[in-house]
Amino acid sequence: MKIICGQKELLKGIQIASKAVTPKSSDPNMECIVIDTKNNDIRLVANNMELGIETIISGEIIENNSVDRIELTANLFQNIIKSLPDTNITIEYNSGSKATISDSSDRKFEINVTSADEFPFPTKLNKSNPIEISQLALKTAIGQTSFAASKNGNGDMMTGESFKIVAPSTLRLSALNGHRIAIRNVTLDKEYENSSIIIPAKSMDDIASILSTDDDKKVSVYIGANSAMFEFDDTTIISRLIEGKYFNVEQMLSDDYETHIIVDKQSIASCIQRTKLVVSDSEKRPVILNVTDGNVLITMNGSKGKFEENLEIEKNGKDIEIGFNPDYLISTFNAITDEKVEMYFINSKAPCFIKDANEVYIYLILPININVN
Amino acid sequence: MKIICGQKELLKGIQIASKAVTPKSSDPNMECIVIDTKNNDIRLVANNMELGIETIISGEIIENNSVDRIELTANLFQNIIKSLPDTNITIEYNSGSKATISDSSDRKFEINVTSADEFPFPTKLNKSNPIEISQLALKTAIGQTSFAASKNGNGDMMTGESFKIVAPSTLRLSALNGHRIAIRNVTLDKEYENSSIIIPAKSMDDIASILSTDDDKKVSVYIGANSAMFEFDDTTIISRLIEGKYFNVEQMLSDDYETHIIVDKQSIASCIQRTKLVVSDSEKRPVILNVTDGNVLITMNGSKGKFEENLEIEKNGKDIEIGFNPDYLISTFNAITDEKVEMYFINSKAPCFIKDANEVYIYLILPININVN
Repeated sequence: MKIICGQKELLKGIQIASKAVTPKSSDPNMECIVIDTKNNDIRLVANNMELGIETIISGEIIENNSVDRIELTANLFQNIIKSLPDTNITIEYNSGSKATISDSSDRKFEINVTSADEFPFPTKLNKSNPIEISQLALKTAIGQTSFAASKNGNGDMMTGESFKIVAPSTLRLSALNGHRIAIRNVTLDKEYENSSIIIPAKSMDDIASILSTDDDKKVSVYIGANSAMFEFDDTTIISRLIEGKYFNVEQMLSDDYETHIIVDKQSIASCIQRTKLVVSDSEKRPVILNVTDGNVLITMNGSKGKFEENLEIEKNGKDIEIGFNPDYLISTFNAITDEKVEMYFINSKAPCFIKDANEVYIYLILPININVN
Repeated sequence: MKIICGQKELLKGIQIASKAVTPKSSDPNMECIVIDTKNNDIRLVANNMELGIETIISGEIIENNSVDRIELTANLFQNIIKSLPDTNITIEYNSGSKATISDSSDRKFEINVTSADEFPFPTKLNKSNPIEISQLALKTAIGQTSFAASKNGNGDMMTGESFKIVAPSTLRLSALNGHRIAIRNVTLDKEYENSSIIIPAKSMDDIASILSTDDDKKVSVYIGANSAMFEFDDTTIISRLIEGKYFNVEQMLSDDYETHIIVDKQSIASCIQRTKLVVSDSEKRPVILNVTDGNVLITMNGSKGKFEENLEIEKNGKDIEIGFNPDYLISTFNAITDEKVEMYFINSKAPCFIKDANEVYIYLILPININVN
């Protein structure tokens, strides 16, 4: 194998493929990226068994007769390419399982590589009946929901994100842990049949990080029995699915509320952030919202001191005093781009809803019982 | 005590005083900043026994009759002030060892403070016979030398930086560890008597970080038996001295060399940086410079692979092959702002010198014996 690529193109490809690399693994294949010239294009491939990524980069194949696939340690490969200026870079396989990486200046790296005979190339799905979504819309919707999934528990359903066609042309993403739910509805251009899968939230985050912010570009999603395939630009991503039937999120929603407030999003987000200053890291203390006409008094009582702040609000319904884990409020407000947010309270023991008028997004957060403390 | 200050002014003062705070100490005083209104100005004071800092900030003292000095945890104090917008901030001591910090909006922190009765206020020196230096010149000279001091060994002379009047109007800063020396000469505006002290290199770095980059501003240095005092702007810094007689650095310098090269600084700095890619973190491998007419071949042979690069040079004298710890070359080149650097070699076992024509800076680096490996 001998190829020539631009440094920027190569680095972009490595950064995409690296999302499917596990840096410290007992299986060396998972730490690697394969350069594959078998099909007369230059593919970078990585697969950590949760996520497989293949991306095609532009460049010239000078020779691919003898060895057409080589496997390199992803981290070293990326660091080397990063260290080189934006010129043409030649990668050449030598005998003795060595490859040289050189640029047009007088510098040369020689590193160990292996043939990719043992590499677990990701299994692609048949390309039929894709769901098509704008890359920007999917990227945004993932960013606004996946944070709510549980971070612990390998293969646990709560570590997944539900990807579900709920109406012929509405995709609903939802993620939850035991204390909150995040839902985002995306309107699609076409109608699709019902389908419902669970994708690991970590895979969704990795996919979102590769998707472009260009609203005119589409991503095609193919759904298989055990995996889903995302195809866009020159990249194909295959994610393992989590098996099982997802929680009935719709059943947890309610239209019944006693209190409704509208508050400036930035003001409440930075206020809740400030409450954390008087709490030490290990301490779990609720932030308390005391809602009265035109005003919410937000207080925190921590081991380092006390904090209070008053915010102006628009209010309908009853007064209420209710406590929350401040981190859940902060991550929710951070996911919302609206200037104002609307919060709906039932009572101090029932979930609070934060949602927009059209229910494009719906967040549900369980309160903390403040009378017990 | 009750004071009102602008948020920016307060934060600037806290950041200056924090350089003399030890965040995790067995003595709570060392984690604190004192607000001192005793002399009818607002002083922020910190002291970790190596370094003491006092800085005066502008603001209004509303009341200082009962308690005129209060002690606050520096980290919490800084985080609170950082979290507030750029408005006027009121700090008020309450009974029961509490202080409230509030801003003009409707928000308020209440935190624990102590009276500063037990606080070790730094001992100031008599203000006589200061050495006067431009703040920029001192800041630059520290940045170009202190990195060469030893990082380990509490109170060890090698962890100090020599601050010495070597000619009536030349200040020489030097720092060294067992493998290298960094020297920087600063021309002073006036003539001074001989003096020579050793200041902890860490203190010098902290002082440098507070000094301004304004060449027209001066800093006055007062030298005492056990400490040195730096006075500039509204800040006074007192550093402990390291006792003893510093190494005779001059004796280690030499004018004798067999090879002299001139090389582009940026090219060689980034080349040496690249050599580190093929070496794992724990591995100590020399970078080898092979100097011939018009060319230096730079190679590294590490556990991850091999690297080589050729750089153009101007050369006088003999060919030479010599090995170095790459980190020592990198930190030296990073400290030099010249576009070209000049290197002087005696032989492959003797120190190499990197210096400018006027010897404003002189760096000496011991080679690694590459024939032993």
